[in-house]
Amino acid sequence: MSKSPITSSLSDSDKASVATVLQATLVDLIDLSLAAKQAHWNVVGKNFRSVHLQLDELVTTARTYTDEVAERASALGISPNGKAKTVAESSGVPEFPDNWLKEEDVVTAVVAALAKLIERLRDRIDETDKSDLVTQDLLIEITKQLEQAHWMWQAQQA
Amino acid sequence: MSKSPITSSLSDSDKASVATVLQATLVDLIDLSLAAKQAHWNVVGKNFRSVHLQLDELVTTARTYTDEVAERASALGISPNGKAKTVAESSGVPEFPDNWLKEEDVVTAVVAALAKLIERLRDRIDETDKSDLVTQDLLIEITKQLEQAHWMWQAQQA
Amino acid sequence: MSKSPITSSLSDSDKASVATVLQATLVDLIDLSLAAKQAHWNVVGKNFRSVHLQLDELVTTARTYTDEVAERASALGISPNGKAKTVAESSGVPEFPDNWLKEEDVVTAVVAALAKLIERLRDRIDETDKSDLVTQDLLIEITKQLEQAHWMWQAQQA
Amino acid sequence: MSKSPITSSLSDSDKASVATVLQATLVDLIDLSLAAKQAHWNVVGKNFRSVHLQLDELVTTARTYTDEVAERASALGISPNGKAKTVAESSGVPEFPDNWLKEEDVVTAVVAALAKLIERLRDRIDETDKSDLVTQDLLIEITKQLEQAHWMWQAQQA
Amino acid sequence: MSKSPITSSLSDSDKASVATVLQATLVDLIDLSLAAKQAHWNVVGKNFRSVHLQLDELVTTARTYTDEVAERASALGISPNGKAKTVAESSGVPEFPDNWLKEEDVVTAVVAALAKLIERLRDRIDETDKSDLVTQDLLIEITKQLEQAHWMWQAQQA
Amino acid sequence: MSKSPITSSLSDSDKASVATVLQATLVDLIDLSLAAKQAHWNVVGKNFRSVHLQLDELVTTARTYTDEVAERASALGISPNGKAKTVAESSGVPEFPDNWLKEEDVVTAVVAALAKLIERLRDRIDETDKSDLVTQDLLIEITKQLEQAHWMWQAQQA
Amino acid sequence: MSKSPITSSLSDSDKASVATVLQATLVDLIDLSLAAKQAHWNVVGKNFRSVHLQLDELVTTARTYTDEVAERASALGISPNGKAKTVAESSGVPEFPDNWLKEEDVVTAVVAALAKLIERLRDRIDETDKSDLVTQDLLIEITKQLEQAHWMWQAQQA
Amino acid sequence: MSKSPITSSLSDSDKASVATVLQATLVDLIDLSLAAKQAHWNVVGKNFRSVHLQLDELVTTARTYTDEVAERASALGISPNGKAKTVAESSGVPEFPDNWLKEEDVVTAVVAALAKLIERLRDRIDETDKSDLVTQDLLIEITKQLEQAHWMWQAQQA
Amino acid sequence: MSKSPITSSLSDSDKASVATVLQATLVDLIDLSLAAKQAHWNVVGKNFRSVHLQLDELVTTARTYTDEVAERASALGISPNGKAKTVAESSGVPEFPDNWLKEEDVVTAVVAALAKLIERLRDRIDETDKSDLVTQDLLIEITKQLEQAHWMWQAQQA
Amino acid sequence: MSKSPITSSLSDSDKASVATVLQATLVDLIDLSLAAKQAHWNVVGKNFRSVHLQLDELVTTARTYTDEVAERASALGISPNGKAKTVAESSGVPEFPDNWLKEEDVVTAVVAALAKLIERLRDRIDETDKSDLVTQDLLIEITKQLEQAHWMWQAQQA
Amino acid sequence: MSKSPITSSLSDSDKASVATVLQATLVDLIDLSLAAKQAHWNVVGKNFRSVHLQLDELVTTARTYTDEVAERASALGISPNGKAKTVAESSGVPEFPDNWLKEEDVVTAVVAALAKLIERLRDRIDETDKSDLVTQDLLIEITKQLEQAHWMWQAQQA
Amino acid sequence: MSKSPITSSLSDSDKASVATVLQATLVDLIDLSLAAKQAHWNVVGKNFRSVHLQLDELVTTARTYTDEVAERASALGISPNGKAKTVAESSGVPEFPDNWLKEEDVVTAVVAALAKLIERLRDRIDETDKSDLVTQDLLIEITKQLEQAHWMWQAQQA
Repeated sequence: MSKSPITSSLSDSDKASVATVLQATLVDLIDLSLAAKQAHWNVVGKNFRSVHLQLDELVTTARTYTDEVAERASALGISPNGKAKTVAESSGVPEFPDNWLKEEDVVTAVVAALAKLIERLRDRIDETDKSDLVTQDLLIEITKQLEQAHWMWQAQQA
Repeated sequence: MSKSPITSSLSDSDKASVATVLQATLVDLIDLSLAAKQAHWNVVGKNFRSVHLQLDELVTTARTYTDEVAERASALGISPNGKAKTVAESSGVPEFPDNWLKEEDVVTAVVAALAKLIERLRDRIDETDKSDLVTQDLLIEITKQLEQAHWMWQAQQA
Repeated sequence: MSKSPITSSLSDSDKASVATVLQATLVDLIDLSLAAKQAHWNVVGKNFRSVHLQLDELVTTARTYTDEVAERASALGISPNGKAKTVAESSGVPEFPDNWLKEEDVVTAVVAALAKLIERLRDRIDETDKSDLVTQDLLIEITKQLEQAHWMWQAQQA
Repeated sequence: MSKSPITSSLSDSDKASVATVLQATLVDLIDLSLAAKQAHWNVVGKNFRSVHLQLDELVTTARTYTDEVAERASALGISPNGKAKTVAESSGVPEFPDNWLKEEDVVTAVVAALAKLIERLRDRIDETDKSDLVTQDLLIEITKQLEQAHWMWQAQQA
Repeated sequence: MSKSPITSSLSDSDKASVATVLQATLVDLIDLSLAAKQAHWNVVGKNFRSVHLQLDELVTTARTYTDEVAERASALGISPNGKAKTVAESSGVPEFPDNWLKEEDVVTAVVAALAKLIERLRDRIDETDKSDLVTQDLLIEITKQLEQAHWMWQAQQA
Repeated sequence: MSKSPITSSLSDSDKASVATVLQATLVDLIDLSLAAKQAHWNVVGKNFRSVHLQLDELVTTARTYTDEVAERASALGISPNGKAKTVAESSGVPEFPDNWLKEEDVVTAVVAALAKLIERLRDRIDETDKSDLVTQDLLIEITKQLEQAHWMWQAQQA
Repeated sequence: MSKSPITSSLSDSDKASVATVLQATLVDLIDLSLAAKQAHWNVVGKNFRSVHLQLDELVTTARTYTDEVAERASALGISPNGKAKTVAESSGVPEFPDNWLKEEDVVTAVVAALAKLIERLRDRIDETDKSDLVTQDLLIEITKQLEQAHWMWQAQQA
Repeated sequence: MSKSPITSSLSDSDKASVATVLQATLVDLIDLSLAAKQAHWNVVGKNFRSVHLQLDELVTTARTYTDEVAERASALGISPNGKAKTVAESSGVPEFPDNWLKEEDVVTAVVAALAKLIERLRDRIDETDKSDLVTQDLLIEITKQLEQAHWMWQAQQA
Repeated sequence: MSKSPITSSLSDSDKASVATVLQATLVDLIDLSLAAKQAHWNVVGKNFRSVHLQLDELVTTARTYTDEVAERASALGISPNGKAKTVAESSGVPEFPDNWLKEEDVVTAVVAALAKLIERLRDRIDETDKSDLVTQDLLIEITKQLEQAHWMWQAQQA
Repeated sequence: MSKSPITSSLSDSDKASVATVLQATLVDLIDLSLAAKQAHWNVVGKNFRSVHLQLDELVTTARTYTDEVAERASALGISPNGKAKTVAESSGVPEFPDNWLKEEDVVTAVVAALAKLIERLRDRIDETDKSDLVTQDLLIEITKQLEQAHWMWQAQQA
Repeated sequence: MSKSPITSSLSDSDKASVATVLQATLVDLIDLSLAAKQAHWNVVGKNFRSVHLQLDELVTTARTYTDEVAERASALGISPNGKAKTVAESSGVPEFPDNWLKEEDVVTAVVAALAKLIERLRDRIDETDKSDLVTQDLLIEITKQLEQAHWMWQAQQA
Repeated sequence: MSKSPITSSLSDSDKASVATVLQATLVDLIDLSLAAKQAHWNVVGKNFRSVHLQLDELVTTARTYTDEVAERASALGISPNGKAKTVAESSGVPEFPDNWLKEEDVVTAVVAALAKLIERLRDRIDETDKSDLVTQDLLIEITKQLEQAHWMWQAQQA
């Protein structure tokens, strides 16, 4: 079914612009949730328990906004694509290391991933200023949460 | 860090056998959770609301056992790998269709995915009968839940 | 008591502009809640139970924002008017059919009502961009919720 | 759909009698909930907070029984009508004042509205003694709640 | 122990009348709960999930009042009998079909069972008007719940 | 303040009749709650713990209906009197024994107190059949609860 | 509908074997729940309250596993039959006495019923060792719960 | 049963001293709870709702410590006496006025009652300094709660 | 440690602008929470209880946003300063009176404090429109809450 | 690590005195919790269920104060020792009988154990009057709880 | 309003003594809560998350007792003063460092602050032994909580 | 009482075998809970808070399975023995060090204790394969939980 069964009040060009933004954000967030779970299972080190728990909070954040972003797309008549293959091919999250991981390496990788996502989100906030203020509001909220997480992970490097 | 920092009481051969079983189950379950979310966002039809909600229950089941399987691996000193790329390359779940989906197509795809996973799990229950009864017990529990889900989805085809 | 006992920091012209926007939104939302309850009681059809429940979720959404909109008006020194007569006379929600209703007719009526409200809200988001960003933020949130509801009801027509 | 798809065990004459009683009660209760909300937003005075909260308790009572009355009608095959226009035209609640309201005026208006509703309900309890004891039981319960509310509001006038 | 160890303030004739009424209601409600569970497990069809859930709500209603009716009997010194054999021999619920059931057949069977029970209960409300108003009040409440359920199931046939 | 600040829709004669009934019921219930607490603290015997807990359930029942009865009086403009002196002078509950009490003596005293109260309540149900059906409904509910308690205490004498 | 609309991965002979086991367990558990309720209402004696409460815990256990067993059957494509007639005809629980029951007779009857059910379940655990390990796991869990209950009831005979 | 079945480690003279203190405190607190309920039902005035609610908080405080004091007595082998007659005869709470009460009269009466109880409690704290530190600790806690309540009621007189 | 260990994606000038805004808001909100607590403890008057409770709601609001504002600063690499000395020196909340306070004086002081804070916040919303939309969104939310509180306190002056 | 890493404001002699008191109390309470669990598993008799449950409440009390006592020691720089060997060697709880136990023997043993512990605690309350009032306060609270438990167990011997 | 509207049963000299103690404790606790929040926002280091969370527990403790101490003062007719200026001028907590803080510096500062407060509280426990045992009891409880916190923070220095 | 009052369906030899297994497991788990509490109170080091909390989770796990194992024994007619002396004499947990403990020493001791218990449990799983599958299932569950804990503690050594 390639023609959208869901209509919206956006113009075609605004909808196209928003579609690109939401699809890219969706893929980034799914990949973040998978990477954080990967670290949750593979981290070792003196602070194991604290990092293990903190990673699950990051998974929860990522999953919550994954769903909000995908459902925002659906609400505008844009079919979201969050399949494993799509994520593997188009995510903006840096490649996450395999195997057991020292806790300091986990911190480094998470800080890098969050910095990358925040940078991409800030560009998208600008892009939606013209096309859809409702979508922009959601992106602002996600950015706020990820910037808070970025601080809390970066504080562990000091 | 390629040498495992976590030791277990299993013999090397039993551990190798269990490692294969758990890694494959992990990938299957992650893919099931992503496919179910994909359907959750893209389904349309008269029963939209019911199918939409039922898919999220399936996501919850898949995520719960994803975590149990990965943590079982970690507990035995086996590093689990649940990254997007790994899932895209090695999942046993049949390819899930793109774009908006009629509810009957969702039901068909979910029933097929569950049947496939159950078949693979039943083989793994046999494989672990010799190597690790604790892992076998977890696989039995997962199979029971997926067989219940399989019935509830298949009942909608009658 | 016609002179407002509540003062605000808005200029008179901004306040007048915001007053019009909030009063109109208040009436629309009350009417939506009454229409959704009317359907909740009168719907019949194979999917009765699902539609009956979904309508009560819509009532909850409408009532929640009714209260937020009215209290936003009060906070700015604007007396809100949500009496039955006012609603009957000035609502923007299309006339809702009397008597028992087939479920597909309920879906059609709800989709139409939501589309109308969203269209009116999007205009008001623009109007408040100059007069009051706080009120605009509330309208953006309401629009997001109604667009999500619109998708979920429209999906049942596919 | 004007012929009722729902059947009941009441005789036609009992059903007609009960229909009149329930429809009138439904309209009264919806109007009470709208009037109480109107006061909730517009009341001012030294006791603002207490009256504001007490009004929301009255709204909750009115909404709860609105639903019970309407669903009792549906259960008997009587299509309930609670639309804004119907309420505006047929409510037995005295016209509620517009604009900001002094708290003593709110108390006066609420006491008057409750006294009127109780009087009408007591007549309907008598009417249903012959036609339907189940409906009568519901009306008795509503009367009890409104008489308790009436006392609590009137006590503020002493 | 055939002589009742529990005494009550009812006269012997009132007690005998009430005993017949409560024992018959007890058996009807137990049979309703077993029939609804039977359908809960055996239903198939597009609406499987919704009907499956709704049947469990009916089971809960039936079990709740089963207990209230039996304990009302005990409170009056009447020994209640709710054993399988007693139910099989004296229930007023129409014979429920064996094996897997299409959802429309489930709806038909449930509507018929509820209609039958309501009819029997209305007779018993009349019978207890003279013998025990406390028991009558319980029967009125049960009738109200079953008439609401009857509407919700019948609405699916429209 | 001897003239009632609260008005009701009852005629003077009905109100006088209901006033007598409610005041007497209030005093009985307060005395029951004090007697049950007295036993709660003074009971001894092999079943101490079970009787001690069951007495507190009786206290809760008595307190709940004490409040409902007194507030029903207030709602009708009848000033309730539940002071210690009033209770000591006019209660219908048999004098409760002082000092430590064997559990079988507690059971005997509680069964006697409940039997007395139920007998008095059944008379009052008849008295209110003409004067106020709303009050009657409350008395029926109280009777039902006390008859259930009576059974559960009497069952321990068998 | 005699041909099963639900398929499973078991061979025909394994499925037939499991079907016999699950159907028999289902009937036993329903009968246990009805017998325990019967005792719950009819028990008398000094320990009334404790036995009355303990019986309801047994009812809850029996109902929980009734549902799990029936749904396990459905999941394997086996139509479960839990109607009153079926239970009356094929239950393995010894005939439960009618009328009021002394608490020691209740204890004796419950201990006997549980001993019988445990014996039958242990045989079925052996039978399913070859046919279906998932079903066996459920039977092991039920046996564990019933053996715990058996101890707690038997301890009262010492 | 006049000889105490409960023993304690206190000397006879300490026990006699503590018995007097606890029995007097018990009676005071029961009377406080009855007086506060009396006011809860009979208060009228502009602040009705607030005073009505605050009185119930006082009832809860009084009841909580009534139970703690009585159970402290039992724990020391002292039979507590909290019957209506005992309270009517020996309470230290000033006589509470009958009939409907203006809110300012309620405040005056409550402040006076609390001041009286606090004064009596402070004497008892001194008395128990020698006889039983555990009882003293309980009296200190009660005094703290009543002094807090005294402030909150007195603040309304300013 | 004067060099910030936390980095952000803002330019230096935007960060400096946001730092001033957030630090000033932080100090205002802490001072509001301390002033509201001061009033909570020192208020007297007929409405004591209502004002006392309402002040604690204001404390909760102030504390919630204090934390959000300070953590927003940290997330951007700006060290927040909320020490007592800093608050005493730089708060924008008008000096709060010492000693016991009549309730009308509390209302006057709270309304004045809220009006001042709202005025300052509206300026900061403008300032952040260029520098950081995420911070602006937080300021909009705080303004909404404070304007609501302002209405509810001012309504008591009417 | 024999030198304490935790310092306190107590003098050396006060600390030594308190150390003896807390270590002895810790051992007593651990032994009480183990003895109560032992009885919880081994009790038999008509009152099995009630005694079984009451024992678990005693375990909870013992465990709660075990933790408070040990952490009080740690807070004062005293290393607590609660190992099995230490408990076996230095507990003040009388030797508890092995094997299955008749309920009256359990009651006797528990009453004796509690009497012994209370006696020892009362001595320690005196000892800490000079050395540490904070520790004394904790011992007073424990004594109150154990004296309440002592009453409830002893009441079963009457 | 400089003359206290709240009276108490303390003598003037006892009240003056208690006033000094409570006011000083109030200021110390407010400053502790502000310092702990300051650290909560500014801490960095490997253990960031754990220290960040632990600081919020300290804030909660400080705020809870701040309120209890201030309300104890009010209850005795002593006007508490907890304004920012008062805290800045009279707190006994050592000056807390500005700017970002290494976690070990946070631990050092918190341990020092707690040691200082405990020392001051122990003096005040002595002072109130004569003037007011109720206030003393509150100070003992606060000391216990702060000594526990002191241990947990100091343990991190070992 | 040396002859067991509880009977089971196991043969004498199976019962003897299971008795040995369960008694040994019981003692191991009680000792683990005491050792973990000992560490909970005596640990010091930078990670104090995290290790302190994690030890309490281990205590909870150990206590939960202690109860399940002992009650499984009782259910089979085997009297469990969990007294301090028995634990001190027969536990398989390595001797736990006295006095304050560095966190790395705690980690080492816990990892060693868990490794030892898991090894012993795996042997017992084999032993019960013939004697009692229900007991085996419980041992498998305990092993799974302890292996998970073993991983989480060992991960801190990496």
